[in-house]
Amino acid sequence: MYSGGVDAAERLIESTRVLLWERGYVGTSPKAIQAHAGVGQGSMYHHFAGKAALAHAAIARTAAELRAAADAQLGADGPVLARIEAYLRRERDVLRGCPVGRLTQDPDVMADAALRGPVEQTFTWLRARLGALLAEGVAAGELTGLDPPATAATIVAVLQGGYVLARAAGSTEAFTQAVDGLLALLTAHAAPRG
Amino acid sequence: MYSGGVDAAERLIESTRVLLWERGYVGTSPKAIQAHAGVGQGSMYHHFAGKAALAHAAIARTAAELRAAADAQLGADGPVLARIEAYLRRERDVLRGCPVGRLTQDPDVMADAALRGPVEQTFTWLRARLGALLAEGVAAGELTGLDPPATAATIVAVLQGGYVLARAAGSTEAFTQAVDGLLALLTAHAAPRG
Repeated sequence: MYSGGVDAAERLIESTRVLLWERGYVGTSPKAIQAHAGVGQGSMYHHFAGKAALAHAAIARTAAELRAAADAQLGADGPVLARIEAYLRRERDVLRGCPVGRLTQDPDVMADAALRGPVEQTFTWLRARLGALLAEGVAAGELTGLDPPATAATIVAVLQGGYVLARAAGSTEAFTQAVDGLLALLTAHAAPRG
Repeated sequence: MYSGGVDAAERLIESTRVLLWERGYVGTSPKAIQAHAGVGQGSMYHHFAGKAALAHAAIARTAAELRAAADAQLGADGPVLARIEAYLRRERDVLRGCPVGRLTQDPDVMADAALRGPVEQTFTWLRARLGALLAEGVAAGELTGLDPPATAATIVAVLQGGYVLARAAGSTEAFTQAVDGLLALLTAHAAPRG
């Protein structure tokens, strides 16, 4: 019984993630979540207070996955620029867009402080993570002449804006060009190897 | 009579722009457009074949305004970097987001080639405009060591991603930081004054 309950909660969260992604908050009804999860109404309200609570769990999980994925490259060994390049160039489903960034265009998510929270925290975390890494590169003499916090914001913006350009064009080429341009600008700040 | 007809068509287009912005394509009904414009159903269908035709006119107008606004700074006199800085720093309603870029998150707009067309063309135009300007700066010896097309894509991405970060944070600070970081990276490519 317990394991069935955990499964139901799990299926409800995963179904909410899928539906939020495909239809947005306003287009995701409790009934649609139950149908997608194969879970009855009673079970859903046993596990979650309602759609907002489920959406919060779904968004928090998506945000946690994004942070873990970023940390895989940014926390690796090696020179700072190589880690940032690995992060920027890692395989992404560019035309689908960023699962966290896209939520900023959902008016219902942005209007609800509890739902916007994990979105805001993810970008705050990512900027701080990149800023600390850039500062590490400056301290180690790998990078020179750049301001870590501002550069970190620029890096995150290029990724998010690259998704926008790729979706507009229906092609990943614009995303790749934006990343290429950014890496060329950053590489100009690599200190000459001694 | 003629002027009344022009007014009705005009009000229908402007109302469609407002409603597309506030509610997205799926949330904008022909009835809502008529009510917002104060125009009857017969008059609407006299001027436009339907909601898709109106949305196309509305999106094309928004795209044309964005191009004109960008040209005001990018086509001004003065050094290339100063024109790009003026463009990046011009007054914007950052928390509302880019009226063209936001359309890339509207699944109905992206799924319709006719509606996506003006969005794609706007970004293609903007990248080409910035690329030509950067190439002009390189040719004039103002800028050195950067690839104009890739750098142009990076600049457009920083703006679009800056909007995403600002909306996530509920504050314009992230947009400003991303632009600051980009301008610092670009300024490193300014040729020393002779």
